[in-house]
Amino acid sequence: MDFMPLNGRQFPRFSGIKTFYRLPYVTDPNLDFNVAIMGAPSDAGVSYRPGARFAPSAIRDISSLGRSYHWNHDIHVFKKLKCADVGDSSVDPLSIENTLTLIEQNSFDWIQAQKKLLTFGGDHSVTLALLRAFKRYHKTPLNFIHFDAHLDTYPAAWGHEYHHGSFVRHAIEEGLINPSSSLQIGVRGPLAGDEDLNVNIKYNLKYITTDEIKIEGLKEISKKLSHFNGPTYLSFDIDCLDPAYAPGTGTPVPAGLTSFEALWLIRQLSISNLVGADVVEVSPPFDQSQITALLAAQVGHEFLAKML
Amino acid sequence: MDFMPLNGRQFPRFSGIKTFYRLPYVTDPNLDFNVAIMGAPSDAGVSYRPGARFAPSAIRDISSLGRSYHWNHDIHVFKKLKCADVGDSSVDPLSIENTLTLIEQNSFDWIQAQKKLLTFGGDHSVTLALLRAFKRYHKTPLNFIHFDAHLDTYPAAWGHEYHHGSFVRHAIEEGLINPSSSLQIGVRGPLAGDEDLNVNIKYNLKYITTDEIKIEGLKEISKKLSHFNGPTYLSFDIDCLDPAYAPGTGTPVPAGLTSFEALWLIRQLSISNLVGADVVEVSPPFDQSQITALLAAQVGHEFLAKML
Amino acid sequence: MDFMPLNGRQFPRFSGIKTFYRLPYVTDPNLDFNVAIMGAPSDAGVSYRPGARFAPSAIRDISSLGRSYHWNHDIHVFKKLKCADVGDSSVDPLSIENTLTLIEQNSFDWIQAQKKLLTFGGDHSVTLALLRAFKRYHKTPLNFIHFDAHLDTYPAAWGHEYHHGSFVRHAIEEGLINPSSSLQIGVRGPLAGDEDLNVNIKYNLKYITTDEIKIEGLKEISKKLSHFNGPTYLSFDIDCLDPAYAPGTGTPVPAGLTSFEALWLIRQLSISNLVGADVVEVSPPFDQSQITALLAAQVGHEFLAKML
Amino acid sequence: MDFMPLNGRQFPRFSGIKTFYRLPYVTDPNLDFNVAIMGAPSDAGVSYRPGARFAPSAIRDISSLGRSYHWNHDIHVFKKLKCADVGDSSVDPLSIENTLTLIEQNSFDWIQAQKKLLTFGGDHSVTLALLRAFKRYHKTPLNFIHFDAHLDTYPAAWGHEYHHGSFVRHAIEEGLINPSSSLQIGVRGPLAGDEDLNVNIKYNLKYITTDEIKIEGLKEISKKLSHFNGPTYLSFDIDCLDPAYAPGTGTPVPAGLTSFEALWLIRQLSISNLVGADVVEVSPPFDQSQITALLAAQVGHEFLAKML
Amino acid sequence: MDFMPLNGRQFPRFSGIKTFYRLPYVTDPNLDFNVAIMGAPSDAGVSYRPGARFAPSAIRDISSLGRSYHWNHDIHVFKKLKCADVGDSSVDPLSIENTLTLIEQNSFDWIQAQKKLLTFGGDHSVTLALLRAFKRYHKTPLNFIHFDAHLDTYPAAWGHEYHHGSFVRHAIEEGLINPSSSLQIGVRGPLAGDEDLNVNIKYNLKYITTDEIKIEGLKEISKKLSHFNGPTYLSFDIDCLDPAYAPGTGTPVPAGLTSFEALWLIRQLSISNLVGADVVEVSPPFDQSQITALLAAQVGHEFLAKML
Amino acid sequence: MDFMPLNGRQFPRFSGIKTFYRLPYVTDPNLDFNVAIMGAPSDAGVSYRPGARFAPSAIRDISSLGRSYHWNHDIHVFKKLKCADVGDSSVDPLSIENTLTLIEQNSFDWIQAQKKLLTFGGDHSVTLALLRAFKRYHKTPLNFIHFDAHLDTYPAAWGHEYHHGSFVRHAIEEGLINPSSSLQIGVRGPLAGDEDLNVNIKYNLKYITTDEIKIEGLKEISKKLSHFNGPTYLSFDIDCLDPAYAPGTGTPVPAGLTSFEALWLIRQLSISNLVGADVVEVSPPFDQSQITALLAAQVGHEFLAKML
Repeated sequence: MDFMPLNGRQFPRFSGIKTFYRLPYVTDPNLDFNVAIMGAPSDAGVSYRPGARFAPSAIRDISSLGRSYHWNHDIHVFKKLKCADVGDSSVDPLSIENTLTLIEQNSFDWIQAQKKLLTFGGDHSVTLALLRAFKRYHKTPLNFIHFDAHLDTYPAAWGHEYHHGSFVRHAIEEGLINPSSSLQIGVRGPLAGDEDLNVNIKYNLKYITTDEIKIEGLKEISKKLSHFNGPTYLSFDIDCLDPAYAPGTGTPVPAGLTSFEALWLIRQLSISNLVGADVVEVSPPFDQSQITALLAAQVGHEFLAKML
Repeated sequence: MDFMPLNGRQFPRFSGIKTFYRLPYVTDPNLDFNVAIMGAPSDAGVSYRPGARFAPSAIRDISSLGRSYHWNHDIHVFKKLKCADVGDSSVDPLSIENTLTLIEQNSFDWIQAQKKLLTFGGDHSVTLALLRAFKRYHKTPLNFIHFDAHLDTYPAAWGHEYHHGSFVRHAIEEGLINPSSSLQIGVRGPLAGDEDLNVNIKYNLKYITTDEIKIEGLKEISKKLSHFNGPTYLSFDIDCLDPAYAPGTGTPVPAGLTSFEALWLIRQLSISNLVGADVVEVSPPFDQSQITALLAAQVGHEFLAKML
Repeated sequence: MDFMPLNGRQFPRFSGIKTFYRLPYVTDPNLDFNVAIMGAPSDAGVSYRPGARFAPSAIRDISSLGRSYHWNHDIHVFKKLKCADVGDSSVDPLSIENTLTLIEQNSFDWIQAQKKLLTFGGDHSVTLALLRAFKRYHKTPLNFIHFDAHLDTYPAAWGHEYHHGSFVRHAIEEGLINPSSSLQIGVRGPLAGDEDLNVNIKYNLKYITTDEIKIEGLKEISKKLSHFNGPTYLSFDIDCLDPAYAPGTGTPVPAGLTSFEALWLIRQLSISNLVGADVVEVSPPFDQSQITALLAAQVGHEFLAKML
Repeated sequence: MDFMPLNGRQFPRFSGIKTFYRLPYVTDPNLDFNVAIMGAPSDAGVSYRPGARFAPSAIRDISSLGRSYHWNHDIHVFKKLKCADVGDSSVDPLSIENTLTLIEQNSFDWIQAQKKLLTFGGDHSVTLALLRAFKRYHKTPLNFIHFDAHLDTYPAAWGHEYHHGSFVRHAIEEGLINPSSSLQIGVRGPLAGDEDLNVNIKYNLKYITTDEIKIEGLKEISKKLSHFNGPTYLSFDIDCLDPAYAPGTGTPVPAGLTSFEALWLIRQLSISNLVGADVVEVSPPFDQSQITALLAAQVGHEFLAKML
Repeated sequence: MDFMPLNGRQFPRFSGIKTFYRLPYVTDPNLDFNVAIMGAPSDAGVSYRPGARFAPSAIRDISSLGRSYHWNHDIHVFKKLKCADVGDSSVDPLSIENTLTLIEQNSFDWIQAQKKLLTFGGDHSVTLALLRAFKRYHKTPLNFIHFDAHLDTYPAAWGHEYHHGSFVRHAIEEGLINPSSSLQIGVRGPLAGDEDLNVNIKYNLKYITTDEIKIEGLKEISKKLSHFNGPTYLSFDIDCLDPAYAPGTGTPVPAGLTSFEALWLIRQLSISNLVGADVVEVSPPFDQSQITALLAAQVGHEFLAKML
Repeated sequence: MDFMPLNGRQFPRFSGIKTFYRLPYVTDPNLDFNVAIMGAPSDAGVSYRPGARFAPSAIRDISSLGRSYHWNHDIHVFKKLKCADVGDSSVDPLSIENTLTLIEQNSFDWIQAQKKLLTFGGDHSVTLALLRAFKRYHKTPLNFIHFDAHLDTYPAAWGHEYHHGSFVRHAIEEGLINPSSSLQIGVRGPLAGDEDLNVNIKYNLKYITTDEIKIEGLKEISKKLSHFNGPTYLSFDIDCLDPAYAPGTGTPVPAGLTSFEALWLIRQLSISNLVGADVVEVSPPFDQSQITALLAAQVGHEFLAKML
């Protein structure tokens, strides 16, 4: 098996069974490849608009437009990196707790087989499950780079500790990530209150707001991006983008990043060992002409280029 | 307070705070009125498309087009029956179990205050909570009339007994409804298997399929509708309609009823004491030009006319 | 000039300047042709959803799918009847009164030139202007056949006598139509009250409800359709259809006619002299995949076949 | 391999790689199964709205809602019939001629391996390729049952003999089907002219119009359905349905069949040996809430039940 | 009454009767609170796409996503400022003149009760009515800050002096605003002619074009923003944004502001006494996934922060 | 004939037969005017999403919002330049080769009559036909300015040399354009491979990437824009814009230009003799609220201002 996308010049991009980037679908962790691309179709943790359960399917569909060659980095991504679609994790649509357990187990199977892992969510609670699996394997808290409009350090809601707005707080408190070597990018207000901000202060979790990016400019901001040494995880909530660029999401916040800003910032990141990454919170029922799903697929391609 | 809808000839129907049928919003169960109209904004029990959490809001919006006078019955519904929007039940978006408890309690408050209750869901699992509240008050199993494409006697799924496809089975097993004085209307295939059909057989729960309605004709079918004596509950899953009439739903099934067939059949029902009713499974993110929500509002109006 | 539609086998139907049915656009009333097809792009009289101002443009666009040969009647409509698109009437988007005056004058120009007139509205208030023009020419009240969900004999609203729900009352009171040789088809409830029904009773204006059509069946109903002798006008409000068939309208009413029922009933009408007709209340911003506009175009084609 | 759909009670229907009905994806014709389900993603032959190239993908997606048990026939379709998704045929998006050749070859591979074949188009020109493959295998013209709004016996257009409106004429002239044991169902006007009707007369190709079905009623019409003896092919153009039921199509025609009428008529067909079938002309860019694609999937399920 | 939004961690944001920002709905001007938030549901003055009549309802709906804490200003807006939804102004959908009178009277009631007023339109003609009310109360022309793609100093159209493109000219000529202490932001071409520009010159009404903002940069432009001393009114036409950010509007103009640019510029404004503000020209029928309405709600939140 | 757009203050912009910018429709090349505006409704060359065949019609529709006066250049475009809608070129929807021939011939008729030509496509393959016509007339390769996300120097696909991704390569190889006096603007990755980049290198075809524009800034980039001396052609693929600004296109690429960036760059171009221009790849079925078509119309207006 050559782990190459189906050739669009022979088989039109609208044809064929849809897998991520038209890559082969494999289920055997013992096969020799580098990156497992997995879906995590759960919206069991959302507070407003559901629909992220359909994201893996929607992203598979439009990722058929994906191309291999990364012009900026001059890399044939899929030639350099053997990638495969490993299908969707099991989930329990009626229980966030069960879903977290299932995703942790499913992802651990691939991590243990020494694959890097790119996951397409699902709402942002799935990242907690993924971080648990990585922690179990690496035994050490990971560096964590987090693109989001929200801090996701929010308190419990409706009596639930675990939901899509609290996973960062839990990841810190469970020792899954190291806040002092972590960074949040794209956060912005308004906020519900100052509880979440206080979590950042308490744990010394740094962030770069959308406003800083816009006012200081990309080149200045890129100087603030430190090098990430050691096992690092990258989580990308599509709502870091402005709703004009990503209408298909659950809790949109105006005045966000442009697609160029987000993709360019990813490219400037210096990461010695990106072990896992995800793109979450795409909600296809609210997408328009697939622009959100397409962008999610391209973010995934940027992440793959970082995994080389 | 006169419990009349806002007058559309004075205040245009697109204006004003949106309540069901432009009725007054009240929160005091001790006020003197006949029917409490409540939202139950939960999709915590769905298996495929979520979105029913937005249904009460969407139905409030378009119900501003509602009119009072029922031509067929020659009844000024809102003149004869004092109705009020009592707001939405509390729900827990992350737990179907908690949601069932909350809706049961919220609805019981109104039932206990001797109001009839019209509920706009929400997915179909909310009906279980409502039936529990009615049973608690009436102490006796209710007659149950159930419009649906599905039998909703399905087994557990993903390890969960309670979901939107199993509520009828539970309602029977919990003694909330009396299957021998109940009727399902509009059911049709294909089915996942014969487990659900076997539940019908086991409990002698009668049904009229969509095919019978279409082939025998409305007038013939209406002869099969028995009189319902005693406390009766009416539950209307919008997916009994064909997807052309109700695209905004979670688990659509082709070859369903037309809007006329459904509304006409409701009119033919002979019910001595309709104590409660609901319209469920409207999923606004999948609706088109509000046609599903508008139909739900009109079904509700038919139900009110039956509560006189 | 041959007054034939552009040939779709030579010039694809998606190409070319869009006119009604791909007919020639003419502005000279002295040209020798039979039917002037005019747009009346006004929604100055609507009570709920506006948008009918865009209907002539939307119907021109999709009417490019129109075909000439009427299979049921075995008539090559555009071969037998010289038809032309005469453009849109002037309108005043900020005044219903001015708009009525402008449409009356614009339509009179064509009527006076002895053209039959097919008009695509616009909201239903435009029909009042058209009837005034016909009355001015014919000097006598016309027979009036009216497809609609509503009786349109509604009282004044927000202090205005003239709006899209009161035109029938005015047409009677101004002597434009003869209620005793008129007929309303497709009306249904709920109604706001009994004021409008009382107008029907007062003037002996007959109607056939949607319910009668559905329950008695098309063949039985067609027996109730009398012959219309003398100058007759036909007005078709697209909301006589069920919202599933015509989502793109301003004040939809569930449980309406199917497209087949409406078109078949038109075909059964026996009219000795159909001098004018209109299709109104298409609201393109609420249409889906142009199904409402396409149906309006086909209704227009049926009307043309009746003008032979 | 058990050729059973993925179990929805274990793996939610929104999860997993999308194949037709959640069946296994196989590429080896030598495997032991009964029905090959293939996509033919071509709209190279359309005259108005393109988009059918996306239909196989869209139908795979929503067919995850499909159920196995056919209530009317009391058949567990996927238990009785081993079915598999065999992927999409090769196509050439820039040439209808090449596409016909590719589909003929691809389908022949499965036919030769003694599979029955269910194909999801694509525009209706793909049926010509499929019929050529069947003729090549069976050596004899097939019986042909054809649901459609159009006769598809249209002349050449823009200088092209082969397009989506002429395939029936070619199928007759190439000896692929036997017109005297064929039947068209659901055809209706208006027509472009009488050329196509004359082809029917010339070859004695019978048809049942939509009008006959509506006016005579389903039970009467079913008496006109003869038994089809010998190798028979069934082609279903989704535009036989009314645009309310199937908005997502390329050349919609108002006043069509309802979903119930179409599905019920299929069930009444008596066919001794249904060797192949297709569902064509679904155009997802014009679909609304997937209702057209869902209906196409259900029609496919009806066809599978006929292949037993 | 505490004038706080409903708590989203207790009552999910998709639940409950929809008011602006989930604030209490009050009708008594004598209650003790600071800001009246009113809807003005009129599109009686539009020239192209109608639909703004539905804006207050749509903004109420999505403003449930609003948060209280303004991160940039470090202000808990709803804790510092008692705000209430005061419902919609009366309007006359058939007369712009009557509508202006009704809105003027309705808004005056709140102004007179010494409330600040935040209004969600409606088309831009409603601002004229609001300015008249403020002038009546303050007796002096107000400072006027105006975000818009258009100058709105356009001449009469179709014989009407008053429409949504002429209100600034009238506000100056009626002495409602002081042009020399006013500013237009975001205007851009193409223009219909130079008549409107000449009005600006004649009255010395300053403006900052979108081009200046884009080319000079936000920091440079902010230096041009003078301090506004005395009673000031802020009017925000959503079409100052690019159609990518605000598709749901009546007369979109490409190459507009981004959401960040608009919100950031608002924050830089120095206003000693902001007595009133509005957000107008949102047209929900043309919105996509509510992004325009959501942005309107956030602009309103920025305005509230300026009213402290 | 005055070649002026219909006056919007007299005839509302939503009324009338739709032509480009409400200009007169003319078919006689001998009339005395400057610029022929033509539609080229073909998507016979697309590789992914079709639909560009509907672009001329969609752009005509929304171009009714167009204004004449170019504020930046202080030019009354339609007063200075006599423009006319010359209708659509003939096309063959089933053959890209025939379509290229037809468009070449149709456009040559206008070029030969010494009109400048502004064409609204159609997919990008139509530009090849247009360049052939210009070469035939001017006898010399043209300067070529090309806005696009793609290089369009791609190899053959599915055995076809000519498709919408290869036209630049063919234009160079056929000697239609002079690569050394040409420029591509807005190109970006990822690419399918390096074949297309190698074509640029081989022929010394310069380009400015989107990344350069974003990072260096518009003012810096404008310094890189050389003067174009001699007959020059300008081709604008709408997909040079980000999908947020132009969702309605066939092969969208994230991280593109904003509408302001594109329009501003056009304005900075210094072209001594712009003989022709086009705007291509608008695909209305994927557009949202017409924002893509509106932008295309405005780009066309910028081009007209360059033709003075």
